[in-house]
Amino acid sequence: MLTAAELDRLRVVLIASRNPLNIGAAARAMSNFGSLHLRVVHPYDVAFREARSAVDAEPVLTAAEEHASVSDAVADCGLVIGTTDGSRRTPRETLERLEAGAALLCQHLRSGGQAALLFGSEKVGLSNQDLSHCDFLLRIPTRTEHPSMNLGQAVAVVLYELVRETGTEPTTAPTVSDPIATAGQRERLVSVLLEALDRSGYVHKGHDATSEERIRRLVRHLHLTQSELYEWMGILRQLLWKLENLQPPPPIER
Amino acid sequence: MLTAAELDRLRVVLIASRNPLNIGAAARAMSNFGSLHLRVVHPYDVAFREARSAVDAEPVLTAAEEHASVSDAVADCGLVIGTTDGSRRTPRETLERLEAGAALLCQHLRSGGQAALLFGSEKVGLSNQDLSHCDFLLRIPTRTEHPSMNLGQAVAVVLYELVRETGTEPTTAPTVSDPIATAGQRERLVSVLLEALDRSGYVHKGHDATSEERIRRLVRHLHLTQSELYEWMGILRQLLWKLENLQPPPPIER
Repeated sequence: MLTAAELDRLRVVLIASRNPLNIGAAARAMSNFGSLHLRVVHPYDVAFREARSAVDAEPVLTAAEEHASVSDAVADCGLVIGTTDGSRRTPRETLERLEAGAALLCQHLRSGGQAALLFGSEKVGLSNQDLSHCDFLLRIPTRTEHPSMNLGQAVAVVLYELVRETGTEPTTAPTVSDPIATAGQRERLVSVLLEALDRSGYVHKGHDATSEERIRRLVRHLHLTQSELYEWMGILRQLLWKLENLQPPPPIER
Repeated sequence: MLTAAELDRLRVVLIASRNPLNIGAAARAMSNFGSLHLRVVHPYDVAFREARSAVDAEPVLTAAEEHASVSDAVADCGLVIGTTDGSRRTPRETLERLEAGAALLCQHLRSGGQAALLFGSEKVGLSNQDLSHCDFLLRIPTRTEHPSMNLGQAVAVVLYELVRETGTEPTTAPTVSDPIATAGQRERLVSVLLEALDRSGYVHKGHDATSEERIRRLVRHLHLTQSELYEWMGILRQLLWKLENLQPPPPIER
């Protein structure tokens, strides 16, 4: 069971939600369980704040932040968790059942870290692009015959798992003097790396979403601490600087 | 965690639900978690079977039984459990938090008994009359500042508690089919990286043991799997190739 202060470090991120009713329902569940920080990334209906059926969830909706991109919405979070019904998952991401995944999330929040919990649109869930931001994926243990939950109900179930009383408290997280890099810090490393790879012809920045996603995933899997990230940043900046200040050899004269 | 056969002995009873949308949402959550027997007692809208938003829940809605009274709806059940947000409870009934109450319910279902789970109307919950049928009451651990949940979400959370795995240890390490890179593989990555850094002027290969150790340590801390290592190797080789095939700019003419 998380304390209010621990739960206060959680951000619930709804991506491309189509139905204001569902955003309202998600906000209500958040309010019920004391997870009060909602972020939305390009919802279909901009009038989401007026979502009906959100009885008593006005404070959550009013305080909701709108972000232009997923990377923006998770920038200050050291752990990013996606949710999926498991039916469309690519084998790249680690998939945890809610019981186990929530324990990892609780551990992170208890150790003082901030975390984001991503929910995709009602129709298609999280995109591959969205998934590339995630450290791992959570699956609510629904039936294989009918895996896909309603958005508001999924939010309620996941948050309940965070506040439910566990028989045994999970082992305390190792004390981290060097905290894990946040998603935002990681993203800066990704962009320097992409810049260098663009210059070297390995990827074509802005024109090759698959490569960008692959690079982002590779960097995420490094699980860098903040000080390690700064070291790698220095290394990559130097490589980039050199690439920018060298020129192609002159054509061979005939 | 209940088996399908055990869960099959549960009846979810919605009493005087006002909104067909909520009945649909409850049916969907039931279908998600494999609790397939819905009973309704005088719903406000008799057209509840056409409840929208009940994606894929048609079998549950179609098979739903309509009962004229609560006593009729619970007649074949050996255990009757009410749900409440705790705000209107009379002191007569035993109140259990969901975690503990669900354990009692599971025990009953496992022992071969049939049980009913009662949900009251969205507005007022269960009446005193309804409560008089209950062996005990369940409370979902919501905040006292906002205890009342949406009906569909409450059904989802209670059913999740019945199917969740108890005593699961969080899997700390993701299951890896991709083995960790060996020290020898790592060393090859280190040497390509050092070569690139030498060319960029970041280190002076062979003359800067401290930097070399620092780079080796950094690479070791990445805990790369073999396939990740090959990807990074490709990236670094490309950077190195580019660095080798570019030239310093010509000196500025004076």
